[in-house]
Amino acid sequence: MKNVRQLTPKELRDLIRKGKWDKTTAGLAMGYAQANLVILPEKYAFDFLLFCQRNPKPCPLLEVLEPGEFMTRFLSLDADIRTDIPRYHIYQKGELQKTVKEIKSLWKPDFVSFLLGCSFSFEEAMLRANIPVRHIEENKNVPMYITSIPCKSAGVFHGPMVVTMRPLPSDKLTRAVQITSRYASVHGAPIHIGDPSTIGIKDLRKPDFGDPVTIKRREVPAFWACGVTPQAVVMKTKPELCITHSPGRMFISDLLNEELAVL
Amino acid sequence: MKNVRQLTPKELRDLIRKGKWDKTTAGLAMGYAQANLVILPEKYAFDFLLFCQRNPKPCPLLEVLEPGEFMTRFLSLDADIRTDIPRYHIYQKGELQKTVKEIKSLWKPDFVSFLLGCSFSFEEAMLRANIPVRHIEENKNVPMYITSIPCKSAGVFHGPMVVTMRPLPSDKLTRAVQITSRYASVHGAPIHIGDPSTIGIKDLRKPDFGDPVTIKRREVPAFWACGVTPQAVVMKTKPELCITHSPGRMFISDLLNEELAVL
Repeated sequence: MKNVRQLTPKELRDLIRKGKWDKTTAGLAMGYAQANLVILPEKYAFDFLLFCQRNPKPCPLLEVLEPGEFMTRFLSLDADIRTDIPRYHIYQKGELQKTVKEIKSLWKPDFVSFLLGCSFSFEEAMLRANIPVRHIEENKNVPMYITSIPCKSAGVFHGPMVVTMRPLPSDKLTRAVQITSRYASVHGAPIHIGDPSTIGIKDLRKPDFGDPVTIKRREVPAFWACGVTPQAVVMKTKPELCITHSPGRMFISDLLNEELAVL
Repeated sequence: MKNVRQLTPKELRDLIRKGKWDKTTAGLAMGYAQANLVILPEKYAFDFLLFCQRNPKPCPLLEVLEPGEFMTRFLSLDADIRTDIPRYHIYQKGELQKTVKEIKSLWKPDFVSFLLGCSFSFEEAMLRANIPVRHIEENKNVPMYITSIPCKSAGVFHGPMVVTMRPLPSDKLTRAVQITSRYASVHGAPIHIGDPSTIGIKDLRKPDFGDPVTIKRREVPAFWACGVTPQAVVMKTKPELCITHSPGRMFISDLLNEELAVL
């Protein structure tokens, strides 16, 4: 078998579909966009679609499937979102009930699937421009924080924005803003740069999700809207049922990150 | 009374609300974004929101109101979309039934209102950069054409993309692409440059809507996705009821065009 890092998106989805890969998808299919998944019953679909429209930075929609559909059309012509993600989280009334490797047996004809952009896309662009990404250097999960910034509510959905943090030397900040601005559909430019307390973060050493990372002297923390926001919001809103990917185990698309860039 | 061109968005909306202005809003409140309006009963709302998500160039969403809501929250904190547009079109099963000056008496609690970006925003940016906008020079309505490019369908909604055309000297094309790319939420960059037959347009002298404009020797036609697309799609899809603004008589927002620019 080829090294997993050399596999194409299609080969990786095949492997995942057969249950042969259930680890993180970080670092796989470099150059291709990966996506977050949120599945909700149809009665919540308009409210959640509206929530994404009103909060495009934490919830950048890459593709929404029609009720009952499970094959993507835009992100891939050959992907079944019921089987092609390494692990799924099943939430009932906002509580994680279990983690499963496929959801074919759970599928209902009123399920609506939302695929949202993932910061893996812009991190690759940062690395190409020689901008350090600390959690990658330290082989950790990116640190994530619940902020005091409220999302704009929509119907039943409401909650605070979750952000990721990447510490940067001052002389890299401008370039990091420019580069991530190109990727509006994968969280885009930072939503905040500098003092964490301004956005309600008390201690950078204690992230709400993920791992703390080293912040060197004279480095400035930069914060990006995070794809965990919709999961946090779903947990807070407590819909009867919600299925998501397991964080870090993403949907691998056939779309190049460069195809998502705005300029 | 001040010259109408000197009025603020709020003053203009007050004037329109009182029924004292029912002409085009082109050239008014320069610098501020104007918007297209589409109102549909709630049962069509998810499909139409999904249609806009899948077709962001012709249908760039600026704001969507919750079912029954008629006060905007994002485009203005002081606007009633039932009264603050000079004229409304009432469509029943895809046919224009009548044109009215307010829709307060027609309002139903299941109406969902969609406000979409308008190319007035990027035309202003083009003029500032000394790029000619022919229909403005000739004091005409922009020429619009139904193309052979299908929109991506969503639920019941389907139909061809409508485009606007602006002829440009070759040496202005690059700059025009750059400038309009900044305004992704008001149709963004051209969807086609050059030979009209490639996108199914037979004769530039015979637009489907608006007026023909002069194309000078050596000028190249450039085509942008057009906000008339959702109206054309609604006419084709024939929902029971749909209310729109009357073309050219737009909603005037309190948002600066520059606030919509992506970079």
